[in-house]
Amino acid sequence: MPRILIVGGSDAGISAALRMRELDVSVEVTVLLRDAYPNFSICGLPFLIGGQVSDPARLAHRGLDALQAAGLEILPCHCAIGVDAASRTLEVINPDGQTQMFPWDRLLLATGARPVCPSLPGIDQLGVFPLRSMRDGLRLQGYLELRQSRRAVIVGGGYLGLEMAEALSSRGMEVTLLERNPSLLSTVHPSLGRRVEEELGRRGVRVLTGVTVKGIDDGAGALRVLGDPELAVQSDLVLLAVGVSPESELARRCRLPVGAAGALVVNRRMETPVAGIWAAGDGVETYHRLLDRNVYLPLGTTAHHQGRIAGENIVGGDRLFAGSLGTQVIKVFDQVIARTGLRAEEALAEGLPAITIPFRSPAHKSYLPWAGELHIRLTGDSRDGRLLGAQMLGPFPQEVSKRLDVLATALFHGMTIEALSDLDLSYTPPLSSPWDPIQMAGQEWGRAVSAGSKGA
Amino acid sequence: MPRILIVGGSDAGISAALRMRELDVSVEVTVLLRDAYPNFSICGLPFLIGGQVSDPARLAHRGLDALQAAGLEILPCHCAIGVDAASRTLEVINPDGQTQMFPWDRLLLATGARPVCPSLPGIDQLGVFPLRSMRDGLRLQGYLELRQSRRAVIVGGGYLGLEMAEALSSRGMEVTLLERNPSLLSTVHPSLGRRVEEELGRRGVRVLTGVTVKGIDDGAGALRVLGDPELAVQSDLVLLAVGVSPESELARRCRLPVGAAGALVVNRRMETPVAGIWAAGDGVETYHRLLDRNVYLPLGTTAHHQGRIAGENIVGGDRLFAGSLGTQVIKVFDQVIARTGLRAEEALAEGLPAITIPFRSPAHKSYLPWAGELHIRLTGDSRDGRLLGAQMLGPFPQEVSKRLDVLATALFHGMTIEALSDLDLSYTPPLSSPWDPIQMAGQEWGRAVSAGSKGA
Repeated sequence: MPRILIVGGSDAGISAALRMRELDVSVEVTVLLRDAYPNFSICGLPFLIGGQVSDPARLAHRGLDALQAAGLEILPCHCAIGVDAASRTLEVINPDGQTQMFPWDRLLLATGARPVCPSLPGIDQLGVFPLRSMRDGLRLQGYLELRQSRRAVIVGGGYLGLEMAEALSSRGMEVTLLERNPSLLSTVHPSLGRRVEEELGRRGVRVLTGVTVKGIDDGAGALRVLGDPELAVQSDLVLLAVGVSPESELARRCRLPVGAAGALVVNRRMETPVAGIWAAGDGVETYHRLLDRNVYLPLGTTAHHQGRIAGENIVGGDRLFAGSLGTQVIKVFDQVIARTGLRAEEALAEGLPAITIPFRSPAHKSYLPWAGELHIRLTGDSRDGRLLGAQMLGPFPQEVSKRLDVLATALFHGMTIEALSDLDLSYTPPLSSPWDPIQMAGQEWGRAVSAGSKGA
Repeated sequence: MPRILIVGGSDAGISAALRMRELDVSVEVTVLLRDAYPNFSICGLPFLIGGQVSDPARLAHRGLDALQAAGLEILPCHCAIGVDAASRTLEVINPDGQTQMFPWDRLLLATGARPVCPSLPGIDQLGVFPLRSMRDGLRLQGYLELRQSRRAVIVGGGYLGLEMAEALSSRGMEVTLLERNPSLLSTVHPSLGRRVEEELGRRGVRVLTGVTVKGIDDGAGALRVLGDPELAVQSDLVLLAVGVSPESELARRCRLPVGAAGALVVNRRMETPVAGIWAAGDGVETYHRLLDRNVYLPLGTTAHHQGRIAGENIVGGDRLFAGSLGTQVIKVFDQVIARTGLRAEEALAEGLPAITIPFRSPAHKSYLPWAGELHIRLTGDSRDGRLLGAQMLGPFPQEVSKRLDVLATALFHGMTIEALSDLDLSYTPPLSSPWDPIQMAGQEWGRAVSAGSKGA
């Protein structure tokens, strides 16, 4: 029986481990993780900080008992520091601080990503926090409770920054969100980013865009965030939310090649170029289904997918990762914003003649009084009408997220925008319209592109 | 320029007319309709009766002005009584009661469906109502307001019956719902029908299943609905909601063939067998994408689709109707129930070795306190794992409808249940989980079928 070792006990590692045991109950799987939190939902940290989740243990997708009951050996607080591919051993610092060698026949590296920490003066002060791991989350929570912090500055207006703006604001804090770009959420069109900014404004969050942080002063009993154009904001804490980079140090040490953004190079079987070593999750490159090449696109969903594929292949399967479309959603107070596929500028950069047509529609029959408005942006190839990407924003109960997923599924299958109208989608007046808004958006795209080409 | 006539001004007729003008602004399109309500949402009638829509005019998808602005000639209160395919003329009773002949080069029959009225003693009494047309709706509304009716019996526990149970109950009426079958909503599995029944019970609607209505007595100042097993319910009004049948009399008169349930036979171009005559909507057979044959499956969504296809082909296009999957959704108070594709028994009747596996899951990460539970039933082919159908029930804000539509889109593309896990769907903790519940349901289906085949 081959000895299977997994380094990393988060989404990719545990998904892989569970899949292996599901397919073959005879395999022995050992998961080593650096911290004490196997299989925790780090996406849930903002909800812990925001107070919706009172017990941190609830953030576990599964408890340790459940993982052990699934037949996994879980070794918390085991820090892998070296891989020897020739002798097939893993060098580990165990909880007692001793070095220990673990032999393996098959190894999965699922080491994840770490928060980017910009090199700025004052960044190492007490009160400046990243938020990526459970440890980060508990540390931040402790600080907030101990200090009774009143003011927060968040650096970065991406997914984490926005969720944390809501979370800290829900605690009654005064929140200032700083974003370097001219609009929030650089993964969607600025017009949607601005609507998110308006929603934050309505909820009392101060948003400053186009601001580059220059450093953090230690002011009189408070931090002072300095920025350009001229900015100085007093704050009790500073949250850094400027992205993540792959945790690939272990892999580099054994000379595994890294590619995009420093992430491990893997094929669609999640194999590294070294026989016997697989890799998956936020530390590796991700095959992009539309671009047909690897990119760095770390997402919890992708980590689960890749882990499951790796797990299957490690126990003898032969399955390809179907690829990511970069499908994402965020809920910011009462607005939901989702996206999939390529933005127009990404498509244009690939040489695709992409056209995006914006469309607005009530989410359901507008004779019912509570209809919220959806903002839909479909991007398609002007030559053959193929769907390339979609973005959607709308108020919370209007099924933005799963409506976008219909488009993600269409995109998965390479549908044209016109063919969206062929889909047989569900309708009842309080939930949709006889043509779903995504189909109307598709019809509008067709009219606009056809009018444009006639005009040209 | 060919003269294009359309008989019927509801979903199919108007969709066709608008599509024709969209593709060719030079065509002249005349729409004749029997009543005075072109392009009204008859699916909205329960919301008019329930009081959420105060002005009946708001039920119009588009006003007469908008239809005329789109270049359509709309002739309300024109009742077509004969078609002569040889001379290409339509015989019409105009609003003055006179017979008028309309010549046509291309004719679209979009005559819709009418409510089934069972032959029962007492069915023609005042206080017994069908509900299909705007006229039906206004008549019922007038009666309710005039009589201040307090008690209602609804015959039929399908989509309309359930929506009307909520509507009448919202008016403060005592509602009794009678269903012949052992459970409500025969288009979904009884276990889901029973959950709908529980929801109605919680809201004070009395539901009696397994009851056949035998007749309606005129009791002392009230109607009395008699049923078997022994039943007598006093009521101020009786609503008949036992289905619809195609309105195909006009077509029969010109000897157009009818098929399933008396609906017009059409091909996927929405052509009847008579050159120059197209037909679409609730009066015609519907191509079923999975069964690969025509069935009778009248739905507003399908009427829109078929109308659009007919419109395109009438002005010289060549487009096939992609087919229906029978995708439907209903919201009953706070529960949403949706379905697509084949139920297990339908698939088995087709000789397909269908297996259905039920699955329950929180709609999103359960560490957030408001997670509602989804009930998902996936039906697949045990030989190749192909998805054959899906049903889902869950509380309102949990995106049941569009989540089911992801499955409808997967079904449209002939996906296997296993491949659902390849879809890149959106995730954020308050709205889903890293594997969407439909993917977890698919994984559960795979485990169950694999365990079953190992056991066999």
